[in-house]
Amino acid sequence: MAHDPHAVAPGRPGEFDLIADYFAPLASRPGAFGLLDDAACLPVRPGTDVVVTKDALAANVHFLETDPPDLIARKALRVNLSDLAAKGAEPFAYFLSIALPPDWAEAWIADFARGLREDQETYGVDLYGGDTLKSPGGLVVSITAIGHLPAGAMVTRLGGRSDDLLFVTGTIGDAALGLKVHAGAPEVAEWRLSPAEQAQLRDRYLLPQPRVALCEAVRSHASAAMDVSDGLLGDLGKLCRASGLGAVLKSDRVPLSAPVATAIQNGGAGLDLALDGGDDYEVLVAIPPDRRTGFEAAAAAVGISATEIGSLTKFAPGVSVIDAGGETVQMRSRSFEHF
Amino acid sequence: MAHDPHAVAPGRPGEFDLIADYFAPLASRPGAFGLLDDAACLPVRPGTDVVVTKDALAANVHFLETDPPDLIARKALRVNLSDLAAKGAEPFAYFLSIALPPDWAEAWIADFARGLREDQETYGVDLYGGDTLKSPGGLVVSITAIGHLPAGAMVTRLGGRSDDLLFVTGTIGDAALGLKVHAGAPEVAEWRLSPAEQAQLRDRYLLPQPRVALCEAVRSHASAAMDVSDGLLGDLGKLCRASGLGAVLKSDRVPLSAPVATAIQNGGAGLDLALDGGDDYEVLVAIPPDRRTGFEAAAAAVGISATEIGSLTKFAPGVSVIDAGGETVQMRSRSFEHF
Repeated sequence: MAHDPHAVAPGRPGEFDLIADYFAPLASRPGAFGLLDDAACLPVRPGTDVVVTKDALAANVHFLETDPPDLIARKALRVNLSDLAAKGAEPFAYFLSIALPPDWAEAWIADFARGLREDQETYGVDLYGGDTLKSPGGLVVSITAIGHLPAGAMVTRLGGRSDDLLFVTGTIGDAALGLKVHAGAPEVAEWRLSPAEQAQLRDRYLLPQPRVALCEAVRSHASAAMDVSDGLLGDLGKLCRASGLGAVLKSDRVPLSAPVATAIQNGGAGLDLALDGGDDYEVLVAIPPDRRTGFEAAAAAVGISATEIGSLTKFAPGVSVIDAGGETVQMRSRSFEHF
Repeated sequence: MAHDPHAVAPGRPGEFDLIADYFAPLASRPGAFGLLDDAACLPVRPGTDVVVTKDALAANVHFLETDPPDLIARKALRVNLSDLAAKGAEPFAYFLSIALPPDWAEAWIADFARGLREDQETYGVDLYGGDTLKSPGGLVVSITAIGHLPAGAMVTRLGGRSDDLLFVTGTIGDAALGLKVHAGAPEVAEWRLSPAEQAQLRDRYLLPQPRVALCEAVRSHASAAMDVSDGLLGDLGKLCRASGLGAVLKSDRVPLSAPVATAIQNGGAGLDLALDGGDDYEVLVAIPPDRRTGFEAAAAAVGISATEIGSLTKFAPGVSVIDAGGETVQMRSRSFEHF
């Protein structure tokens, strides 16, 4: 350790009190050992596979450092649950590394832990371990989420087949426009949205709704799937590359919420922003044609809308976007990259 | 995402090229899907338990940002392997989140990945997933390591029993003194060590030697175990608290390397520094008296020295340190905390 091992900031709990007071209560499963150990023993059911995903979020990259701590916590957890759902896996465990900036406050931690507790109850997951550390440069929250599914049932990005139908859940672009609202971008005025509509978009940015309930429908019917986190168009491009295929995306079929449709209609927000923007946390699935009815019924049964937006094609590489008349639409088409 | 999703720094690979060029070659197991997916499917053998640990390291907290990138990578991996070894688990998989500062360079990443590859070969582990992200505030490396062991065999900190013998592997304090060498602390001059001795200590700080080979001996013989990462005295205190016991530590029995013994003898470094300093990454085990011979033989069989340093006692809480004459030694006794 590159600093005085005995330095404890006055008036704040030490690392071990912090864990005992705020994180240990979130870790009540036997294999978590109340966070008294530095490793956990995962319950693994016979006949299941274990699916693991790991996504970290950094202040002022994935969220603003002034965002409410409970929402930062829930977003960090939910983006990982979204990954698992798109693989067909039911989440049950997560591990948390939280790198705290020098000026962290106990009340912030309390709110952060409260957010985690709420989502643990919502999604039926438990904390199993992790660590807290000091980060001179700012908050980084890294979560490893773990799910299970019947052996061999994991749905990857690699299994798409030509002529599979592409479906996406929910609506696309809300979070990309919501980030503009949240950041006070000047173009928001041109959209002429009501305060309630703006709040609806901002909420989608701040708190994703991972499609955990869809996991059984995904693993029962999809040949390939992924969550849409870095922009629909770019993410579809990744699925195509992984499957060695191309895709046709029908731009008029992309499901838009009323505020996004209004913003596009009023100008100032193009369809580009909706299709290229990130943070949707919807699920994109490739469904063999003979599975269409079954998938639609399974999604409807769990109350999740899923819209057919195109299909996979033999004509690799890349994604062609066509409009209602079948004409090719020129799009910026690169997905979010961190660098 | 709170910044332009299309910004790519000129002259450096984008996120996906970075993953494809440097990290995908480290992920050759089927369940890793060549990092083309955002989740992994872990191979789980029937009759085994899955043990998970997650430790993150931050620049200028756990390492200096100017340290060689391959050593940063290997240390980040090794501190996690050390945790697994102390649980009796054999490592097989890890996930990596790397939060890069704005000024990262491709050559740095190449060296970092080379370090990982070396240690993958040394320890028989494979990369299964993770993510790269931008960290405005500085490098944070978060690793989740996964091991397995026969079902029910995980050794925790909680299982210690009164009169169990305490053993520690290797030597204690090298890394704490090595950090002083590495940081150019003025008191190093008082130790009167040769350049080779100083280098030996510094190397122990920069590159831990996790006791992976000890895992079978631990799970076959120990009632409780943990790795020593935050200082022997404080870590023993944690094991005592978790087991609801006290301990007696015989200060003259603590195994010291020749340079540490010399530094203490010459003044300027106290035994305190060795016992309280962090980064040893040795294993502390509690061995029932009737298991002593078996444990010693098992450790010797894998070429790892293990020294008896005391015992667990009914007299909770806390750790008493006694000298060769049985007199109590007053020690600072708090383990490293991050805040």
